[in-house]
Amino acid sequence: MTRLFNDPAAFADEALEGFAAAHRRWVRPVTGGVVRAAATPAGQVAVVIGGGSGHYPAFSGLVGRGLAHGAAVGNVFASPSAQQIRSVARAADGGAGVLLMYGNYAGDVLHFGQAAERLTADGVETVTYAVADDISSAAPGEAAKRRGIAGDLPVFKAAAVAAEQGLPLAQVASVARRAGERTRSFGIAFSGCTLPGADHPLFTVPEARMAVGLGIHGEPGIGEQSLPTADEAARLLVDTLLKELPVDVPAPGGQRAAVILNGLGSVKYEELFVVYRKVAALLEEAGVTVVDPEVGELVTSFDMAGVSLTLTWLDERLEELWRAPADTPAYRKGALGEPGPASEPAAPVRAAEETEQPAVPEASEASRQAATTVLAALAALAATVDAHEDELGRIDAVAGDGDHGIGMRRGSTAALRAARAAQERGAGAGTVLIHAADAWADRAGGTSGALWGTVLRAVGAALGDRDAPTAGRVAEGVAEASAAVRRLGGAEVGDKTMVDVLVPFADTLTAAVAAGAGLTGAWDRAAGAATEAAAATAALLPRKGRARPHAEKSLGTPDAGAHSLALITRAVHGALLDHPHDQY
Amino acid sequence: MTRLFNDPAAFADEALEGFAAAHRRWVRPVTGGVVRAAATPAGQVAVVIGGGSGHYPAFSGLVGRGLAHGAAVGNVFASPSAQQIRSVARAADGGAGVLLMYGNYAGDVLHFGQAAERLTADGVETVTYAVADDISSAAPGEAAKRRGIAGDLPVFKAAAVAAEQGLPLAQVASVARRAGERTRSFGIAFSGCTLPGADHPLFTVPEARMAVGLGIHGEPGIGEQSLPTADEAARLLVDTLLKELPVDVPAPGGQRAAVILNGLGSVKYEELFVVYRKVAALLEEAGVTVVDPEVGELVTSFDMAGVSLTLTWLDERLEELWRAPADTPAYRKGALGEPGPASEPAAPVRAAEETEQPAVPEASEASRQAATTVLAALAALAATVDAHEDELGRIDAVAGDGDHGIGMRRGSTAALRAARAAQERGAGAGTVLIHAADAWADRAGGTSGALWGTVLRAVGAALGDRDAPTAGRVAEGVAEASAAVRRLGGAEVGDKTMVDVLVPFADTLTAAVAAGAGLTGAWDRAAGAATEAAAATAALLPRKGRARPHAEKSLGTPDAGAHSLALITRAVHGALLDHPHDQY
Repeated sequence: MTRLFNDPAAFADEALEGFAAAHRRWVRPVTGGVVRAAATPAGQVAVVIGGGSGHYPAFSGLVGRGLAHGAAVGNVFASPSAQQIRSVARAADGGAGVLLMYGNYAGDVLHFGQAAERLTADGVETVTYAVADDISSAAPGEAAKRRGIAGDLPVFKAAAVAAEQGLPLAQVASVARRAGERTRSFGIAFSGCTLPGADHPLFTVPEARMAVGLGIHGEPGIGEQSLPTADEAARLLVDTLLKELPVDVPAPGGQRAAVILNGLGSVKYEELFVVYRKVAALLEEAGVTVVDPEVGELVTSFDMAGVSLTLTWLDERLEELWRAPADTPAYRKGALGEPGPASEPAAPVRAAEETEQPAVPEASEASRQAATTVLAALAALAATVDAHEDELGRIDAVAGDGDHGIGMRRGSTAALRAARAAQERGAGAGTVLIHAADAWADRAGGTSGALWGTVLRAVGAALGDRDAPTAGRVAEGVAEASAAVRRLGGAEVGDKTMVDVLVPFADTLTAAVAAGAGLTGAWDRAAGAATEAAAATAALLPRKGRARPHAEKSLGTPDAGAHSLALITRAVHGALLDHPHDQY
Repeated sequence: MTRLFNDPAAFADEALEGFAAAHRRWVRPVTGGVVRAAATPAGQVAVVIGGGSGHYPAFSGLVGRGLAHGAAVGNVFASPSAQQIRSVARAADGGAGVLLMYGNYAGDVLHFGQAAERLTADGVETVTYAVADDISSAAPGEAAKRRGIAGDLPVFKAAAVAAEQGLPLAQVASVARRAGERTRSFGIAFSGCTLPGADHPLFTVPEARMAVGLGIHGEPGIGEQSLPTADEAARLLVDTLLKELPVDVPAPGGQRAAVILNGLGSVKYEELFVVYRKVAALLEEAGVTVVDPEVGELVTSFDMAGVSLTLTWLDERLEELWRAPADTPAYRKGALGEPGPASEPAAPVRAAEETEQPAVPEASEASRQAATTVLAALAALAATVDAHEDELGRIDAVAGDGDHGIGMRRGSTAALRAARAAQERGAGAGTVLIHAADAWADRAGGTSGALWGTVLRAVGAALGDRDAPTAGRVAEGVAEASAAVRRLGGAEVGDKTMVDVLVPFADTLTAAVAAGAGLTGAWDRAAGAATEAAAATAALLPRKGRARPHAEKSLGTPDAGAHSLALITRAVHGALLDHPHDQY
């Protein structure tokens, strides 16, 4: 378990601060993460990686010569926000474009995708690549749905060395794809980690049992077995990976492979070496030559007890890139010579939203009055999230990565703060919601941060700052939010995500308002529909200990996202009851 | 807990094999451990380090350019044997002598000391240095009694760089002493590790509590407190170290220090960074400039949850040595340039005892017959140790490092095997015991290995191979063993070690034999005295949860060593009853 922290909500920020203080020779902090201590040489593509905290050395520990130019660092187990990623990428950019690389998780895909759009709008040519190496997380036919685990390292490294060799962005991205296609990982786990401030581990594995194919946040695996010997574990890992070879590697034998035996946190070095002894022997038997093996902790999950094996099937070019030297806080290899004199460090690029106060357009008296109700609703929302944080994390850990409670709390707290600041500056109801939306997305990161930012923004846009909000306007905004979340997340009703709750909520609200109900009454009915839908969704979901053939994670936090939405609709109803407005 | 292993007794050997397979670029295996892949340049002092397994990267992970020339690798938490150390040192020797370095534990002190004597006899100039950085383990006035923990690294490194600079042995040793005198560590712990194959952790700390000053094997600390915040933990570590400065650093302020914040295994990287953030701030406040800090896992104890802070107070020379580059499996720093072409690897130096069958002098028929009784006694000894292995480990963990059960089993099993081989080759009783003694000391390592080797050797020497052993001869041998153990371990009755049991056992045996009792009857009486003495010693010892002002570890395994000796005397009595011989 995680024992040493101050305020759990500040954990990721404080860890990043300590990390940067300990590694000044390699990195400097910027808004949203870190970049190399020396500026990216002009004309060199910048490789910017990122993901949630709790996985060190991924991601900040991999910034330095021969590896990434920068890392966007999210909260614990939560994707960095698009704003953070953009800020780090701007600081790392050497004028030749940016390759954004990350593990293939819904939240990261959303935020890195949005960041790429914003960077392109900023005039920075940007390409994204999501590493998807975990073969247990989707069938070979759906390889694009796979999670990224310890295969991050060889893929990041290949692209970064190609960038340092001066290749243009398109070719650097092509190297990343080639490395990604030839990288496969498979893992086993024995126990989960307990996040800072949490009471319970994210997941548990029964004593003397082993979860097979478990994700690095405890996402479901493909089965459970009794605890193996070290040799049996090695055989399972090797055999599984040798069964699924890249298309241009028809059968094992005669190939060369980069090998990573990765400890997740509590399977310690000597244990890893005992396993590696057999891994090396089995690969040799299969005719596979091991090149520069790595045995250690390269992608962790706090003190989770687990181990994964990664193979990158090398061709001549990939071998050159894998063997190239690197000098980062957590990964050093070969001889790079002394670093040149550090370039004049560029001033950290601060996100516009953080340095400038966002604009507050003029608002009508009626809209300003309605803003107090919006504020009360956001306060009720934040209070209910706060009260249910642990519960949401636990529910999420059943099928997701356990970050839902943390992310929702950070997001809702930041949203309330931003809303209050806007309201004090005279903002109308629409602007209060839009400021809250941006703060939520930026501070929470993760899938839920992106989606809740979208929800609040849609409702805010519908309300505007001119007229007193009517029940009809609110219903329109909610309907628009429902459509936007479906578009952004690519999910529909039945996919076991918050969409399962948002759609009936929006539909019931619209119908009730159309039938002449006031906002408070209509909201009450809609909240009832939301609660029912959440219960129905929960019943569809697997329970701990039941293995599923493949992870079904489309919107990142199924069940937990549905559950929190239902709780929130009920809490907001309470706020509406307390703040009756004639116009509703 | 340690989950991935095959045969627990083979764990350390298999880990070493896997480690060497993964790091061929840096190291090559030799009997007893590893040395650098390239031979030590002629005329360069070789720095050979070592200790028990379970502490990776200590010790094998620290072999390579800029650090050690070789590492002797003991069993789990047990000192390597003198034979192993000698073998590694012979392989690492470049003709300019060897500096043996290790943490200050009774078993290591015994075995490295014996190895130095043998190396000197071999014609290899040898000096030893024990790192003793843990200020919680003895008062400032008794600093030589302190344990070695994470301060190993800066002291090893300083000496190794001095050796690479071409200094002669005496000056390299003087650098080690200077670095050691200026290195201080202090640690805290939250939970212990479970050794491979064991059912229970070596020690536990109550939930939400913290042990202060705990050793890396769970040896007693100086107190217990409630779980601190990360900032409070940082303050405790820094304040404690700033209270005890080296004599030539009168007050903190204006100095420069190397800083290591070391995780013991399960306090993970982000937690360490949160703590380091405050450590750095507090040192800055105190006017101490931090030089090349290290935050990570440098000396572990499997997955023990703990953290220690080490400061090395630098002068200009020590700073140069600390900042020098290094390239080892687990510790890489700065730029060393590509390694030169590897020298022709010297053939591993195999210990004479392992490559040649030890000699079996001619024996009388009577002595050969008595050898069957000796064999039965050794079999009973091994069986009782086997049956009590876990119990002995647990008892040892109260006040020692928990290795007693493992060490005793490895030793007694090896002794029985060697005795059987000798007996099959026609050895007499004396030679059977002497072969058993050497096998025990070599295979078990640790304090108990050295002491039991001494015990069996003394009895074997008294019995000889010519005459039928008499009760008087046996009593003489046991009396000589009692004296030899006191000499070697520097302990007397009352120091709460096996001496507390061995002395009354030997005295009672001698008295009973002198009074005319046969061996079996006399042994019975002596075993009774041993059992009583062990119980009395146990009553003197602290129990878990009771903090002691300072660790009282003179012979390494008080209580457990006394307890196992009493058990063994009783088991041997059973063997004597089953194998009556007229002459006894």
